Amino acid sequence: MTTLAFHTQVQELLPEVEARMRSQTEGYHPALKKALDQLLDSGGKRVRPTVVLLVSSMLGVDREDSLNLAAAVELLHTATLVHDDLIDGSSLRRGSPTLNSTWNAPATILAGDFLFSQAASLGAQVESTEVMRMFASTLSTIVNGEIAQIFGRNSVTHREDYNQRIYAKTAIMFEMAARAPAYLVNKQDLYDSVLRSFGFAIGMAFQIVDDVLDFASDAKTLGKPVASDLRIGLLTLPAIYYLEDFPNDERLKQFQSGIQLPPEVMESLVEDIRSSGGVDKSRQEADQQIQNAQVALENLPECPEREALAELANYVVERMH
Amino acid sequence: MTTLAFHTQVQELLPEVEARMRSQTEGYHPALKKALDQLLDSGGKRVRPTVVLLVSSMLGVDREDSLNLAAAVELLHTATLVHDDLIDGSSLRRGSPTLNSTWNAPATILAGDFLFSQAASLGAQVESTEVMRMFASTLSTIVNGEIAQIFGRNSVTHREDYNQRIYAKTAIMFEMAARAPAYLVNKQDLYDSVLRSFGFAIGMAFQIVDDVLDFASDAKTLGKPVASDLRIGLLTLPAIYYLEDFPNDERLKQFQSGIQLPPEVMESLVEDIRSSGGVDKSRQEADQQIQNAQVALENLPECPEREALAELANYVVERMH
Repeated sequence: MTTLAFHTQVQELLPEVEARMRSQTEGYHPALKKALDQLLDSGGKRVRPTVVLLVSSMLGVDREDSLNLAAAVELLHTATLVHDDLIDGSSLRRGSPTLNSTWNAPATILAGDFLFSQAASLGAQVESTEVMRMFASTLSTIVNGEIAQIFGRNSVTHREDYNQRIYAKTAIMFEMAARAPAYLVNKQDLYDSVLRSFGFAIGMAFQIVDDVLDFASDAKTLGKPVASDLRIGLLTLPAIYYLEDFPNDERLKQFQSGIQLPPEVMESLVEDIRSSGGVDKSRQEADQQIQNAQVALENLPECPEREALAELANYVVERMH
Repeated sequence: MTTLAFHTQVQELLPEVEARMRSQTEGYHPALKKALDQLLDSGGKRVRPTVVLLVSSMLGVDREDSLNLAAAVELLHTATLVHDDLIDGSSLRRGSPTLNSTWNAPATILAGDFLFSQAASLGAQVESTEVMRMFASTLSTIVNGEIAQIFGRNSVTHREDYNQRIYAKTAIMFEMAARAPAYLVNKQDLYDSVLRSFGFAIGMAFQIVDDVLDFASDAKTLGKPVASDLRIGLLTLPAIYYLEDFPNDERLKQFQSGIQLPPEVMESLVEDIRSSGGVDKSRQEADQQIQNAQVALENLPECPEREALAELANYVVERMH
């Protein structure tokens, strides 16, 4: 894993978090160890556990608890990706083969289920029923969002729907990463709303940036095809802005009515969205969220961890500039 | 739901448990409500929640807690069935269409995930981190057993493997149903080993009976084809006993080496197992487990709930006589 500025504060803890995640397959079928190793080896910046560790350190959470919580959050996130990739038929994530491209569907479903249970197991280690409830309701919201997406493909065309979707898909998990530590030291009354705002804002920005890069980057950097969401029938923010500017675009109308676009038409649509103002407007929206995150941070005590959280927030949008 | 003798003690509580399970979809996508209703409408004797309620009542568990725990256990069980039926491609359960026969795979996967999260949510209501850990590790064991099964189809040929498999598949959930209430009133030191033995024994018997009926019953009563496990490559207890008696049966040798048997050969094998002593030996083994369960019960205080648990234990094997 590349070490970034925001990692510095928790540099010695992250390998521990990694070890705790990997140890969750001990005593189980070797195939599960192989699956989890493959998933964790494919990398990731471990942004969510870093948020947990930074907030925990700032609020004086017990070291053991913060490590278990960080590992639980990242494992829950990893578990959701397993079923996501299977459902979307994605063969690559972060440039590495997905589990569903290596295993058949039954084994992939079960591997995801196993990771859910092991995330819950790690989460239960911190002995907080409030945190357990937060885990359960976070997962419910994530899955509910995906169900809504499946039963309504092509139907998200307004920014409001989009915001709801990415909250369920991404921001709620960041919210949980930021909020949960406060519950372990009974400081939720003091900090819950601030941490929630911070987690929400970086989470929303994180997903918008992903959606910007999906159009603005190239297949090699992405480790998957450009505009992959559009290709599976999903309108993301750059496309929604494009639609606002060109409400009569015939291609998007067909797309919305569920008609599969011929490859060359799809390519021209992707190209038009890429070169439209929609990508820049989306960038600005992500930047706005990060400004909100920075404002939220000002309500926390000044300390090195707060600095690191500010750096982490900036990093989220740096990826797209 | 048909009321059976062992339900009497908790008759007024069961509809509450049902309502609590169904209420878990409130506030979520209507498709999830439809899915859960379909799953719960297909019936079932609610044996697991009845165990929770009876043990809870015997040990003086708070009414609210016992209802939430009972609903959580049954919902967790229901959730595991959703992915099971998808993986096995089963179109019927208890004579009703499975979710995967109505929905596509992505929606079915997500419905299962949602039920996992809602089972955890209900489980978290009882505010016991020990119970949460039990939930998580029960799910891990169940999923691990299924993974082992997938990576080793046709490979279970000894009673010892079979016992391990059905412990993970069925008995551990009964164990949890029996044990968990004691943790809510801090009586685990007094009763954990007794309740565990009881739950284990009725759970093992429950699965053996299912496997006996799979051979001894008919498709109409089963609500699915006879010998359905064998047809998907699984040897259950009657077949394992048959193999012990006829170790040189060419059909079983082929089967074990992964060769698909022609339909008429499969039918003759099913018929031979049905008429072999393997079915009766399996019955005896289930009866033995129920005797063990009754012995375990003697270590609990004499009370109407203990009577009802004894009746419930007898009911488990009555189905096959």
